[in-house]
Amino acid sequence: MQRDDTPYLLVDDDRLRRNIERLAEWAADHGLRVRPHAKTHKCAQVAARQLDAGATGLTVATIGEAEAFADAGFTDLFIAYPLWPSESKATRLRALADRAALRVGIDSVAGARQLAARLRGAPVDVVVEVDSGMRRTGVVPEEAGAVAAAARDAGLSVIGVFTFPGHGYGPGSARVDAARQELQALAAAAESLRRAGIEPRVVSGGSTPTVAFADGGVLTEVRPGVYPFNDAQQLELGSCDADRIALVAMATVVSVERPPTDPDSPITEPGSPLPDPSSPTPEPGSPIPEPRRRVVLDAGSKILGADRPGWASGFGRLLDHPEARIVSLSEHHAVVEFPGSGIPELGALVRVVPNHVCTAVNLADELIAETAHGLERWPVIARGANR
Amino acid sequence: MQRDDTPYLLVDDDRLRRNIERLAEWAADHGLRVRPHAKTHKCAQVAARQLDAGATGLTVATIGEAEAFADAGFTDLFIAYPLWPSESKATRLRALADRAALRVGIDSVAGARQLAARLRGAPVDVVVEVDSGMRRTGVVPEEAGAVAAAARDAGLSVIGVFTFPGHGYGPGSARVDAARQELQALAAAAESLRRAGIEPRVVSGGSTPTVAFADGGVLTEVRPGVYPFNDAQQLELGSCDADRIALVAMATVVSVERPPTDPDSPITEPGSPLPDPSSPTPEPGSPIPEPRRRVVLDAGSKILGADRPGWASGFGRLLDHPEARIVSLSEHHAVVEFPGSGIPELGALVRVVPNHVCTAVNLADELIAETAHGLERWPVIARGANR
Repeated sequence: MQRDDTPYLLVDDDRLRRNIERLAEWAADHGLRVRPHAKTHKCAQVAARQLDAGATGLTVATIGEAEAFADAGFTDLFIAYPLWPSESKATRLRALADRAALRVGIDSVAGARQLAARLRGAPVDVVVEVDSGMRRTGVVPEEAGAVAAAARDAGLSVIGVFTFPGHGYGPGSARVDAARQELQALAAAAESLRRAGIEPRVVSGGSTPTVAFADGGVLTEVRPGVYPFNDAQQLELGSCDADRIALVAMATVVSVERPPTDPDSPITEPGSPLPDPSSPTPEPGSPIPEPRRRVVLDAGSKILGADRPGWASGFGRLLDHPEARIVSLSEHHAVVEFPGSGIPELGALVRVVPNHVCTAVNLADELIAETAHGLERWPVIARGANR
Repeated sequence: MQRDDTPYLLVDDDRLRRNIERLAEWAADHGLRVRPHAKTHKCAQVAARQLDAGATGLTVATIGEAEAFADAGFTDLFIAYPLWPSESKATRLRALADRAALRVGIDSVAGARQLAARLRGAPVDVVVEVDSGMRRTGVVPEEAGAVAAAARDAGLSVIGVFTFPGHGYGPGSARVDAARQELQALAAAAESLRRAGIEPRVVSGGSTPTVAFADGGVLTEVRPGVYPFNDAQQLELGSCDADRIALVAMATVVSVERPPTDPDSPITEPGSPLPDPSSPTPEPGSPIPEPRRRVVLDAGSKILGADRPGWASGFGRLLDHPEARIVSLSEHHAVVEFPGSGIPELGALVRVVPNHVCTAVNLADELIAETAHGLERWPVIARGANR
């Protein structure tokens, strides 16, 4: 592995450890257990650092992720997803329950009954998912008790409620508003369980943008995922600073756009209105931007991921060039626009911060980690484990 | 492999073969050679069908993809990318040149000299990349001769010019306009080489949206990638019909949004203005849409890919529900909105067409193919081969 053998994902283990310890201390001070979402890193080395820092277990998204971490020796796993298991998935769930303390999500009466029928009494706890405003999965809080009661009556062990305030991924006050809705929804859901005669032992929430607002008076645990690495989304949402970015894609400048030599050439004329399928559509009436110099990197959507929320400034950020913007992304090209100065040369190495680190990591078979013991290869043990 | 063990990518081999044969016949009728881009499928089985139908070789994007296909027995490979090889990459390139007819791209004088220095005389042909309006990589056509001459003088074997009209991925007349610019740029670049005393044997263009407009009078070969499978982008651009979609993600309905039981509940109130971070921002002044029913599928961005150009109607399409729209996509959730009727039930299997099949395939370790011989597993041999 040569440093200039780009593109690859590089982890700064020192920053990683500090990000993990900072959250662990904050949670301890607020009386919250931490059950980090392992879909972000899919790495035993990162999970081990999280448990060493006090995490009580791991959250995963799929049965396959749970199997990968159980194989790596992690024995307290929450599949925070409303499973509708096929017969073969149910067989795998029952096998998992033999070797790990296992929790799964439910969000409907029908789902609870189907899960109970397929688990056939295997020791799996269930947690009712509640919608706190994202409008993805989860029942309205007031219905959590009815779903919990149906699950209990179907023979399942109901231990509490959980939500994911994913609508906190937004500009302005979205984080604060989502965190408030999260608390309200979880409080109402917990009360709905109590009215159904079920005392919730687990009231689980938290996402990296909203975790700082979690309230130990309502929640018992938080499940942030992105915080060990952070990414360009967190940077632009203001939930981390640049010095807390612990994972970058190392890339090489492979092409530099030159000023046109032929002023009549329609092709690279500055400010040319040629369609650029990937760059954001300008607001109606916005002025044509001043021409900026473009360079192309060998890191594209097949290593950074194509995630680009409407509020993001581009398809990722350059850690050492805060003024630069990734204006378009292809599978193996990132087109970066720079103001007049500080443009890296052909062949230069640059550090790219992915917009969404969870999808970037899932594209790599291994992470290259810069540790106190030198460069290490960390296998992404649950890469592509979607089932 | 059970059919309900979702999510997974399923190939319809009958449609795949017809898509491949249709393009092969069209190209033969127009005097064009076909060098399909293998970054789309990364599969030996698909490449073999393309060569059986008359393709002269394969196009790839990286040295790693070239190695994967050389290992699988494919011996005529074009790395259509302006390489800036590290020492270790150059060593791999020289090894590839010993076992395959190898072509690579260049798009600058400096790049040509660096490549020549690192190849140390290895038998690799070079092709000058030209920008035809996408403003990604490639020189302006009039400069192709200067880059070609510098490459020749550095000891490289220059065989022609190529371009990728990626700006044809757009609504309205984008395809036609890009195809016209592609022809103009390649004709000008070929003339520029001739003025530099280099006769271009290869004039290479073509993308799936623009290939139908390719002109055998200017081009010698086309390099479409997506056409064997097609995807939701091609469907919405009008470059294929639904009956030519040969790859889908099989998914299960895991959650169904229920009408609110409490009219005061702010959480699932129809038409509620709660932020939805992933759905497209409505046009200013557009009316609030009528409430539609939502279901959630277990296929998210980790199997479909997160690609979503501004002109796309959503994050993919449902092959059997043309009226449905994927309004938001998370890593393991697709939120689909349906009009009042025809909504699949909890546990139902649905066929999802990814927006961009190249990035979807790159997320999977294998494709499940429905063939005349039954279900087959096709390994994605170049998955993640970004270097």
